[in-house]
Amino acid sequence: MTALLRAPAPALLERFAAIVGARYAVTDTAAQAPYLIEPRGRYPGRTPMVLRPGATEEVAAILKLANETRTPIVPQGGNTGLVGGQTPHETGNEIVLSLGRLDRLRNLDAEANTMTVEAGMTLANARAAAAKADRLFPLSLASEGTCQIGGNLATNAGGTAVLAYGTMRDLTLGLEVVLASGEIWNGLRALHKDNTGYDLRDIFVGSEGTLAIITAAVLKLYPRPRGTALIFAGLPNLGAVLRLLNNARATAGRDLTAFEFMARIGLDFVLRHLPDARDPLSTKHEWYVLAGISSLISDDDARERAEALLAAASEADIVSDAVIAASLAQAGELWRLREALSEVQKHEGGSIKHDVSLPVERMANFIAEASAAALKVVPGARIVPFGHLGDGNVHFNVSQPIGADREAFLARWDEVNEAVHAIVAHYDGSISGEHGIGRAKRHLLTAVKSPVEIALMRKLKAALDPNGILNPGKLL
Amino acid sequence: MTALLRAPAPALLERFAAIVGARYAVTDTAAQAPYLIEPRGRYPGRTPMVLRPGATEEVAAILKLANETRTPIVPQGGNTGLVGGQTPHETGNEIVLSLGRLDRLRNLDAEANTMTVEAGMTLANARAAAAKADRLFPLSLASEGTCQIGGNLATNAGGTAVLAYGTMRDLTLGLEVVLASGEIWNGLRALHKDNTGYDLRDIFVGSEGTLAIITAAVLKLYPRPRGTALIFAGLPNLGAVLRLLNNARATAGRDLTAFEFMARIGLDFVLRHLPDARDPLSTKHEWYVLAGISSLISDDDARERAEALLAAASEADIVSDAVIAASLAQAGELWRLREALSEVQKHEGGSIKHDVSLPVERMANFIAEASAAALKVVPGARIVPFGHLGDGNVHFNVSQPIGADREAFLARWDEVNEAVHAIVAHYDGSISGEHGIGRAKRHLLTAVKSPVEIALMRKLKAALDPNGILNPGKLL
Repeated sequence: MTALLRAPAPALLERFAAIVGARYAVTDTAAQAPYLIEPRGRYPGRTPMVLRPGATEEVAAILKLANETRTPIVPQGGNTGLVGGQTPHETGNEIVLSLGRLDRLRNLDAEANTMTVEAGMTLANARAAAAKADRLFPLSLASEGTCQIGGNLATNAGGTAVLAYGTMRDLTLGLEVVLASGEIWNGLRALHKDNTGYDLRDIFVGSEGTLAIITAAVLKLYPRPRGTALIFAGLPNLGAVLRLLNNARATAGRDLTAFEFMARIGLDFVLRHLPDARDPLSTKHEWYVLAGISSLISDDDARERAEALLAAASEADIVSDAVIAASLAQAGELWRLREALSEVQKHEGGSIKHDVSLPVERMANFIAEASAAALKVVPGARIVPFGHLGDGNVHFNVSQPIGADREAFLARWDEVNEAVHAIVAHYDGSISGEHGIGRAKRHLLTAVKSPVEIALMRKLKAALDPNGILNPGKLL
Repeated sequence: MTALLRAPAPALLERFAAIVGARYAVTDTAAQAPYLIEPRGRYPGRTPMVLRPGATEEVAAILKLANETRTPIVPQGGNTGLVGGQTPHETGNEIVLSLGRLDRLRNLDAEANTMTVEAGMTLANARAAAAKADRLFPLSLASEGTCQIGGNLATNAGGTAVLAYGTMRDLTLGLEVVLASGEIWNGLRALHKDNTGYDLRDIFVGSEGTLAIITAAVLKLYPRPRGTALIFAGLPNLGAVLRLLNNARATAGRDLTAFEFMARIGLDFVLRHLPDARDPLSTKHEWYVLAGISSLISDDDARERAEALLAAASEADIVSDAVIAASLAQAGELWRLREALSEVQKHEGGSIKHDVSLPVERMANFIAEASAAALKVVPGARIVPFGHLGDGNVHFNVSQPIGADREAFLARWDEVNEAVHAIVAHYDGSISGEHGIGRAKRHLLTAVKSPVEIALMRKLKAALDPNGILNPGKLL
């Protein structure tokens, strides 16, 4: 389909600019720069124009014109995505449509536990709006200050609170989207139950901007926990980590709000590169767990449950050593260790990424076998597994051998991916637990999906975006 | 599309019968009877043949032949649906495809908290399989002994545990479906996170057999609560009922596993017609609530929390009187009062049904205004509201005036619906909270959906079932 798409001529660009006003049609190269490169720096792109509409109607007018003129459009939120889904290709044919100005809180209904926000609101602002009304919006990502609700929806974002509250899909009741035709679908329903026809909402959540542009959403709110306890534990092996997870589930149920894990090497990286970081435990351990328990009663109640969990785990020789954060500040310090993990890997040279999910009890076998497979491709590489164990989601990252050439190492990206993804397939896992497909994994899709599934996806794409103007060359 | 569909000729029927074997191709009128009439008896249908395939491959072969020969197919599970979606039309052109023989438990993974079951397994058997592995499958419906997982999925079933665990959609990880073409899509993923492309699963959940036939599913399991407490409370007005809901949410959070409500007249009906039923409270109240609290610790823990909730509610004059079930047997008695509600209305003459959902804080206004509107159409009618208050879902049923003619009353079904649904629209509600559209509400769809949404639904239908063979004349 991309072959039919046209680079917009100057006269057409003027028509696009007129929709949003000259001030919000960015053509200056310096001003465009932040929209053209994604966080991992793998896909520097070009665009004739970045459009920054201020209302759903402007998004609609842009898509109507784009559809009529076969102009490719790349929707973009906070530009924090990790698979290159949100930036334009190098061709310079695609217009970037940035949602950042649609950032209003349209409505918050504390009694009904819902809020309606626009796509460009940052996740941090959405969480703050909920907190102001004494409610919790649970989605939690390291990039929350920058990433936007629209991007969270387009990628079905995950993060550290999925265990108790689900992914962005689970947190969404209704959507407003602009279709490729420029028509607006108002599906902003604030209903917990609605069985009147096909579930259109979930077609758009996770579609990475290829089926429509999401402009607003009704999100679910939850009671704000009255107390939390955060455990940082050192464990001897992955079997112990899994046993701790099972025990924590059994005692805390859905008050277990996070269960993150990392290998020692990850903590080493953090201690080496994160300013003021210190090891919370006095001796070294093979594995670490960060487990959050929340309580609707009090901090004391959460803490008591955390202590009971640790006492039992210690008695069963599951946990070697552990601390419980004694204050919000301490908890913040512990979370900082976990959240710095993505960033600090950059300081250790090249890193080949995998964002894998598996049935959780297969995790130990997977990590052992995938590590061996990766090391066979690149002897001396350093395996840095960490992530959301409670969801079966591991960021299985491979850092270059010490002293190796960065570019030579990164040139083996596909080879390493292939070796690791073969183990993923063996254990019925997914090659993208939360980051999506975007541009980075598009070439892998036909290997992990059946022809029937690929054909179904293409039928959907053809039905909803017949001219292929929405984020071409991404996902599908 | 239905105009192009053909009634199957005898030679073609033989080909269909050959797929499943003569024993499972039911043509005998008496043997067909249970498949032709739905629980409310509104749509007696006819069929040349009921096919009872025993494997997914047989379903696939049936649809392949049906698609090639333009033969309309009506998929059917336990035949407990309340909107006529699962039975054939009066024309006698449609073949019924009953999933009941696909009833195997394919796999249960207690550590991963998942099980894979076939579409024809009854909900009761699915719950029992989970319980046997010390897990909870939470979906809970009065018809659980008869209804089947496939039907639960096709209608996105709700019931009494939605408040804490969500609808069938929320309880499902993966699906196996047979497409209209006869191709099998194996989407049986047991992953809690998987962002590799469009969410095909949720297109099929709730599509009422019009987009594909679901043959198996991977379902989520939960820890089995170690204790439960069940409150039966009498309250003076709906405002008090809503305040009790908010208090219960704040204290029990997601351990509040049910919050059902009914008007006094509903209890009167039950006491009059349910053998051995007795009023759990010594005086009469305007409204009743059945609230379940579960605990991962013990019955005592659940009971303590229930008592604390009631003590606070009593002090605030929210609750007039209440009991807490002291045993499983007592809890069963209380649930029996609630679950008999649908059935006992039959003994009071004609009943005009509404299955409405609303943002929960609008419930009191809705019931007041909808009652007035219904009584304006049929003076003397008896309003019987009950349902899942925690989900904003009310079965707003209207029983005939005492002594009125049943048929004359039921003849005003559409008129009463129209009056009530106007109030639903005013409060941004849904005309089908959980039962679906089927045949009963199909004519209402264009009134409650925008042309954009109807067009989107038609595009989906055309993309997935181009010949319109799947459950024609239902939903869309």
